[in-house]
Amino acid sequence: MPDLPHRVTITEEAPREGFQSEPPGIATSEKLRLIDALSGTGLEKIVCASFVNQKALPQMADAEAIAQGVTPRPGVEHLALWLNRKGFERARSSGLALRALVTASASATFLMRNNRRTPEEGLDDQRDLCAAYNEAGLPSGPAYLFTALGCNYEGDVDVATVISRLDALLACTRAAGRDVSRIVLCDTVGAGNPMLVERLVGDVRSRWPDIPIGLHLHDTRGLGIANAAAGLRLGVDYFDASIGGLGGCPFAGNRSEMGIETGVDLEALLEAGRVAAEVVGHGLPSRLLAAGSLARFRGVL
Amino acid sequence: MPDLPHRVTITEEAPREGFQSEPPGIATSEKLRLIDALSGTGLEKIVCASFVNQKALPQMADAEAIAQGVTPRPGVEHLALWLNRKGFERARSSGLALRALVTASASATFLMRNNRRTPEEGLDDQRDLCAAYNEAGLPSGPAYLFTALGCNYEGDVDVATVISRLDALLACTRAAGRDVSRIVLCDTVGAGNPMLVERLVGDVRSRWPDIPIGLHLHDTRGLGIANAAAGLRLGVDYFDASIGGLGGCPFAGNRSEMGIETGVDLEALLEAGRVAAEVVGHGLPSRLLAAGSLARFRGVL
Repeated sequence: MPDLPHRVTITEEAPREGFQSEPPGIATSEKLRLIDALSGTGLEKIVCASFVNQKALPQMADAEAIAQGVTPRPGVEHLALWLNRKGFERARSSGLALRALVTASASATFLMRNNRRTPEEGLDDQRDLCAAYNEAGLPSGPAYLFTALGCNYEGDVDVATVISRLDALLACTRAAGRDVSRIVLCDTVGAGNPMLVERLVGDVRSRWPDIPIGLHLHDTRGLGIANAAAGLRLGVDYFDASIGGLGGCPFAGNRSEMGIETGVDLEALLEAGRVAAEVVGHGLPSRLLAAGSLARFRGVL
Repeated sequence: MPDLPHRVTITEEAPREGFQSEPPGIATSEKLRLIDALSGTGLEKIVCASFVNQKALPQMADAEAIAQGVTPRPGVEHLALWLNRKGFERARSSGLALRALVTASASATFLMRNNRRTPEEGLDDQRDLCAAYNEAGLPSGPAYLFTALGCNYEGDVDVATVISRLDALLACTRAAGRDVSRIVLCDTVGAGNPMLVERLVGDVRSRWPDIPIGLHLHDTRGLGIANAAAGLRLGVDYFDASIGGLGGCPFAGNRSEMGIETGVDLEALLEAGRVAAEVVGHGLPSRLLAAGSLARFRGVL
């Protein structure tokens, strides 16, 4: 029988990954309207911006303005993404919540095309970041592995490669005297399927039985929720998600209907989904957003 | 480890359930264009029409014309749905492939609202049908149980109710000296989740270990593919599906990428999905239809 978690923590990615998948030009005030709506749903972690190269990603050029404009709310961490020390220093100045984030990519081609780094250069960035985290006195943070379930350039990524990339990344953090709080396996390009998730989570857990595992999945090819369900079966209790499916990340909404506590008010989340559709000016792929919660479906609400 | 089937049989439902979910008025010739496209994909079973009350379902008023117009193709069964003897006699006259279909509903309210039958009246219809099947010399056919995973009127449907409705239905067929070829559990309203599928399939299999189980799932709330994956894990090897997600049934396309043989040419199926979108005149919900096959994604095609 499945090893379902009792409680799942969801990190909301729409204000970062969702907006970066949209054409540039969404007003900062509109982005803030969505972030504030999300802050009232019970979500505890919301990634609000990327501190990355603004030329490569003009959608994130207002990262500092977003950080300034977010309405703080007790119990909600407003987070950001960065890939190197320069990005971290921007995040540190911005006032957003900090986390000791380290990253690598299973696919070397993806890392080069996306971040212009060889795997070795990527590890250098992470060493540099760990030194900065030590200096800032940050506690452990997550280790994200991009393209863990496949790559649009390289195709299938084998589990041995995933393990060896993670090994190298964790060796960097250990060398800096640091732990990681969890390993997040990313299906960056939406190539995974439930059987791959099952094998990968199983193998990563066997190798690092004491490190919790999270999943960052994409619904590019319709398997996002099925892949999340495969992770839930194996006790995965951290998931990244995106309101309404914005940007191709699956939507977190249905999870509570399987009896798993999320801390999220589903009706408030659906309302935030309607805000997200207004902000981007087009419909979102979430079927649940169209259909509504089971409670409403059944006339309980 | 999962008990994945080696091969899955998919029954295509778009020309019936998909078109009946659209407003009336799609030209018969356009419907036939989709059916003929589907016939060339490797699908072995295509449900082309419903022989039901035309007043209640005007979208199916051209069922006889569809049956007349379908281009036969070796290895493809062009099937139909009916709920009573009158419908079966129409199907028999139509020239479509016949199957000894028996049906019931877990939810009595659904059966009354949808078919205007009490459970007892529904069983009378099935007895009548079994007599007709004997007379026609039909081999065993499937037993469909509607609302097996929940009902929009009654809410949750408990497993004991599912078992007792199936018990009554199978008693009818046995009394007529007939077997069923499989039990098809229908998530008619899209209320199921992977854990419910797992429990229900497990309990039905324990009760009838020798009868194969099929699933007819809907993607109303985004869980269609996750529910199908839960069924696959348990060895379910019959699935109803609908091209491009037309009508809310999930799309069968990804299955072959998990190493499960379907006999279906995925590229031809995607092409049929584009025909389906043209025929109904609007986009379809399938993510895979938008994203393309993994082979194309990887540049192999």
